[in-house]
Amino acid sequence: MKKIFLLTLIAPLTVFAQNNASDSSFIKNISDNILSSRASYNNLRTLTKTIGGRLAGSPQMVKAEQWGAQALRDAGADNVMLQECMVPHWVRGGKDKASVTYKNTNGETITMQLNVLALGNSNGSGPKGVQAPLIRVNSFDELEQKKDQLKGKIVFYNCPFEDTFIRTFEAYGKNVVYRVTGASRAAKYGAIAVLVRSMSNSTNNDPHTGAMRYNDSFPKIPAAAVGLRDVEKLDTLFDNGVQLTAQLFTYGKMLPDTIGHNVVGELKGTEFPNEIITVGGHLDSWDVNEGAHDDGTGVTQTIEVLRAFKALGFQPRHTIRFVLFANEENGTRGGKKYAELAKQNNEKPVFALESDAGGFTPRGFSFTLNDSSWNKIASWKKLFEPYGGCDFSRGGGGADIEALHETFGTPVAELIPDSQRYFDIHHAAGDVFEAVNARELKLGAINMAALLYLVDKYDL
Amino acid sequence: MKKIFLLTLIAPLTVFAQNNASDSSFIKNISDNILSSRASYNNLRTLTKTIGGRLAGSPQMVKAEQWGAQALRDAGADNVMLQECMVPHWVRGGKDKASVTYKNTNGETITMQLNVLALGNSNGSGPKGVQAPLIRVNSFDELEQKKDQLKGKIVFYNCPFEDTFIRTFEAYGKNVVYRVTGASRAAKYGAIAVLVRSMSNSTNNDPHTGAMRYNDSFPKIPAAAVGLRDVEKLDTLFDNGVQLTAQLFTYGKMLPDTIGHNVVGELKGTEFPNEIITVGGHLDSWDVNEGAHDDGTGVTQTIEVLRAFKALGFQPRHTIRFVLFANEENGTRGGKKYAELAKQNNEKPVFALESDAGGFTPRGFSFTLNDSSWNKIASWKKLFEPYGGCDFSRGGGGADIEALHETFGTPVAELIPDSQRYFDIHHAAGDVFEAVNARELKLGAINMAALLYLVDKYDL
Repeated sequence: MKKIFLLTLIAPLTVFAQNNASDSSFIKNISDNILSSRASYNNLRTLTKTIGGRLAGSPQMVKAEQWGAQALRDAGADNVMLQECMVPHWVRGGKDKASVTYKNTNGETITMQLNVLALGNSNGSGPKGVQAPLIRVNSFDELEQKKDQLKGKIVFYNCPFEDTFIRTFEAYGKNVVYRVTGASRAAKYGAIAVLVRSMSNSTNNDPHTGAMRYNDSFPKIPAAAVGLRDVEKLDTLFDNGVQLTAQLFTYGKMLPDTIGHNVVGELKGTEFPNEIITVGGHLDSWDVNEGAHDDGTGVTQTIEVLRAFKALGFQPRHTIRFVLFANEENGTRGGKKYAELAKQNNEKPVFALESDAGGFTPRGFSFTLNDSSWNKIASWKKLFEPYGGCDFSRGGGGADIEALHETFGTPVAELIPDSQRYFDIHHAAGDVFEAVNARELKLGAINMAALLYLVDKYDL
Repeated sequence: MKKIFLLTLIAPLTVFAQNNASDSSFIKNISDNILSSRASYNNLRTLTKTIGGRLAGSPQMVKAEQWGAQALRDAGADNVMLQECMVPHWVRGGKDKASVTYKNTNGETITMQLNVLALGNSNGSGPKGVQAPLIRVNSFDELEQKKDQLKGKIVFYNCPFEDTFIRTFEAYGKNVVYRVTGASRAAKYGAIAVLVRSMSNSTNNDPHTGAMRYNDSFPKIPAAAVGLRDVEKLDTLFDNGVQLTAQLFTYGKMLPDTIGHNVVGELKGTEFPNEIITVGGHLDSWDVNEGAHDDGTGVTQTIEVLRAFKALGFQPRHTIRFVLFANEENGTRGGKKYAELAKQNNEKPVFALESDAGGFTPRGFSFTLNDSSWNKIASWKKLFEPYGGCDFSRGGGGADIEALHETFGTPVAELIPDSQRYFDIHHAAGDVFEAVNARELKLGAINMAALLYLVDKYDL
């Protein structure tokens, strides 16, 4: 009896140890393959340097879809399909410009140019521009306190991006509401335009654009982000009680929705072809840069995982879908369409992973799933330690796979790269190919491939 | 009896929990202070942009010492002293140049320029240069096999920097011997110069210099590192059986030893003033860049820890020495002198920490110490998790504090930043201020300050 008891105790442990060794050896093969290949970095170069910025609805985005479909084929997808979806079609329409005018202590009139970018989805001022006294508010509370002074003015939202968060996404999460809703909240009190401090703690003066949303109840006033060195100058002037008049010229326009596509490559499952594991990044980007970290790296990592799986002869038990989503930046229509089609087709999405937090050195993953799945995943942590992606936390997902989670309750995860550099270049001119390190990009793909391999092997 | 037993059990746990809470709160204060301050980044800018590259014995190094002493005073050192030591005085002496000449398939003579840098400490070819057939060897084994063919030739060491190590220092550790000893090993068989594949897996063509050492038994032949894109071209030519003649012009010269200084700032201990905790980086750098990651970041992090401790009113129990070492790159004379003086003065060095692996986002620390000290330190790991520096391993130290460990058995540690980007710029033109991210620099200083605070509080 005792012997049998010991055996039942030991047997699963032995199986676990064997599995563990074969898993760690397979993951090492993935790592060696990806680190030795130039494919992902070359793909990123092509996407960023020959196509460039690719806002939904733009001609560049059409090129990017064609490129993505071919790249998935080249990487070895069993089949590649395009999922049509309607996407917002915002255009910048011209070169954004702003300045402030004030009297210096000698009574001379000074005009200071500001480095600005219109916010995505915002309506332009048109060529005549808008001009009005500038009012600084450091928070919505202050906006409310000053609501009687806002009529006919331009509001300058100046809430600092907090330095003291270690995870910079927390600073972003706290402040992004000023970019998204600030225009309408100021328009409610009669403001005619807003300038928003860039969502960044960068040391340069590049303005950082990004999506805003109008509240249909109020006038749709122009809105632009200001570079941080200019913000410092404005702050000094305000602190000294200088009266400022701002001029803003933007040309943004929301055209009718147009057609975009999710680009989907598939690796058919050997045992459960109808159970779908999804991995992806978004193919669209802002128009002001090359969309390298946001999200060229997620896209090329997704393709790289497929390439490495095929190169190693890995045949998944479940079908794995490698998805380049159509429209994350100003509508998340790609992710919504993907979930909608999955529902229509009675699919069974069992897991989804996104890489959309930059191609920096990986730190770990964040998961949204139930306790038993979490416990299973937590037991794999050691396998990720050699590759840097072992910091597992809960609560994360990814904008493009949120709809999947909401529709089906699918467990979702996102790759968490180191976030220190991200907001230096996020939605700004600096998000270019040169800002990506080849090895960091590849390490992200290695950790992603390892997670997909384990989920496919052990289920959740 | 039972009650008393429980109390004895609970009391230390309560003390531990209280300590833990107060420690984590103090470390959070350190973090907030450092992340909110521009001091470290501004110091780095001054050191790299107004002083620049600072090889031991150079006029720039003299300026750097003066700057360092003042920066330590500004940061609040109780006193600042200079420790004189003799340092090697190597000069590059001119612009390094190399090319290869060969016949193409049409029989035309082609000359291809190579991007090279003479290795540190090497003797130049002089203005007449050296010219000879080029022989490729991929390893010392191959060198030995070809030893009869080397007389009068130039040897091209082509051992690839392995991509598959996750920790890039392992690839460096494996290959650096070609740079350090390759010249004399080839000279032994009559070679008249060597070209060495750069110690890097960078995607650009910058050559990477670094220290070499001659074996006095053999002729001291010229030696230079070659950029990796040129290495690829050479490889293709060799693979196609093309006969190459190489020309090399270098001007390096080892002058008599000269005077340098360790720059030392001190914070006096309140309880154990004679027990010394050392923290440092090295002030010298190569001459071909700004010495930003190597080791301007270690230097400015060291100064930043002092500034933050003073700003928070922290009074250490032991004396803490903040040391900018005089000469790591081509002699480690600074570290040796520091240990020698500690011995002379009957000091008691209880712990030493160095930051000399780049100013990238911190991953952890590596320690060389006994088991009981290791167990103590391992119990602090949780405190480092929020700041990214929680990957603790054994076996590390730092070139400048090695002599301290050897002389006294002092427990030593080094900051381990993420290493993916390091060898892209190590000892090459790209190691400039712009390659350093302000927040990553500061995070390193935060983790260093936390470790010093804990060692000072709990002893080892």
